[in-house]
Amino acid sequence: MKRRDFGKQIAAAGFASAVLGPRKGLADNKPIQVGMLLYPQLTLLDLIGPQTVLSAHAKIHLVWKTRDMILTDTGIGIQPTATLDECPKDLDVLFVPGGPGMIPVMKDPEVLAFLADRGSRAKYVTSVCSGSVILGAAGLLRGYKATSHWAATSLLPLFGAEIAEGRVVTDRNRISGGGITAGIDFGLVLLAKLRGDDAAKMAQLLMEYDPQPPFHAGSPKGAGDAMTQQLLAMVEPVNRETRQVATQIAAAGGGR
Amino acid sequence: MKRRDFGKQIAAAGFASAVLGPRKGLADNKPIQVGMLLYPQLTLLDLIGPQTVLSAHAKIHLVWKTRDMILTDTGIGIQPTATLDECPKDLDVLFVPGGPGMIPVMKDPEVLAFLADRGSRAKYVTSVCSGSVILGAAGLLRGYKATSHWAATSLLPLFGAEIAEGRVVTDRNRISGGGITAGIDFGLVLLAKLRGDDAAKMAQLLMEYDPQPPFHAGSPKGAGDAMTQQLLAMVEPVNRETRQVATQIAAAGGGR
Repeated sequence: MKRRDFGKQIAAAGFASAVLGPRKGLADNKPIQVGMLLYPQLTLLDLIGPQTVLSAHAKIHLVWKTRDMILTDTGIGIQPTATLDECPKDLDVLFVPGGPGMIPVMKDPEVLAFLADRGSRAKYVTSVCSGSVILGAAGLLRGYKATSHWAATSLLPLFGAEIAEGRVVTDRNRISGGGITAGIDFGLVLLAKLRGDDAAKMAQLLMEYDPQPPFHAGSPKGAGDAMTQQLLAMVEPVNRETRQVATQIAAAGGGR
Repeated sequence: MKRRDFGKQIAAAGFASAVLGPRKGLADNKPIQVGMLLYPQLTLLDLIGPQTVLSAHAKIHLVWKTRDMILTDTGIGIQPTATLDECPKDLDVLFVPGGPGMIPVMKDPEVLAFLADRGSRAKYVTSVCSGSVILGAAGLLRGYKATSHWAATSLLPLFGAEIAEGRVVTDRNRISGGGITAGIDFGLVLLAKLRGDDAAKMAQLLMEYDPQPPFHAGSPKGAGDAMTQQLLAMVEPVNRETRQVATQIAAAGGGR
């Protein structure tokens, strides 16, 4: 193969896929089947962190009710690749991101039924950020330890989940990550379970994940009480509405 | 305003915007005008890290030659919001992400002319990952210190830039970040310059950027020589082609 053709092939396949994927000694492994739920106003970084980590090893289905473009929380439009019906029935990983659009999703029987169905057979049922609250609404966290965005963890017991400490929390086949950027740590933990530590380390090296935050404000403890209270006050209306939705789901016998 | 309406407004505006944006005591600040270059096969996480950090404070233009959907490196399609001509002439921030699609961009006179023009007036000329190599090809790093993805830093001197140590490198109004995930650190450094430390800390808290990588493999030093050489060998064809492009640009008197 000519050098230039190889370069083009790398470009076509995706840099990460070329470096880490089936071409690189993993040809015997079938791609991991991952279903990632999309919805309007999801937090895009919740999704792109783990999606990037897993991409070389996975066939990733971006699933929503239609294939129409979806506007994410900060204004970037992305394209679903499968409808709920088109998503494979048996997934290795079911994944739900968080985001300000979570309340309409929690009220949508069609989406909750999809999650409950795929989640009943998926090898891993997973989330980042307030995606765990959606999993809870679908009845998938009852009796499980889980985490969420630090400002949303208090919502988990509404759906029978137990709040656990940790940036990535594993309880049997449920794995949940903390807020937004925790999706990168979550993705590496998940990839190590699925393909071994070396695959995860290679992904970490490729992604140059050697974090050096310029401040220590990434947790309530680090940011201090004033900033934490300010942010909690801002999200309280969303949390309050989630509590109402949870009450409705419980009254209807849902949330299992 | 009813509680539910406020919740809806938060959803509509984007969680980050609602918490951090002009509504939150920043009403006197005009949004930061950010032009982010899109191109086929860009590395999406290079872009989404800083885009998420800046989003609450910025009007972000996702710029490409057309508004047609763009397929990024790991298969996610995203939508440009402006063509090269439509992008504002005077930007606060010009930003270029890296990715396996960088070579066609470096060969494209129209895109290089766009970057050179906007870069000549932008308050900050910035990049993450191999985006700095594209900035170099557009003549914007000659005589400046910069960084890139660790596997691409050797390309910078081809365009007259000086390789500098650091996950985020600032030299006058040029700010470059390292590979892929460095975009989050880069975004926080940039936001602190533009809006002050507290704005950056608040963004960090919202994004729960309290990283806890499960391994220490995020740099060549941490990953070890064997893994580093394996990855370097895989990217060598792309690096080799970039060297050829650089030679052509130099021969044509470009790269200033």
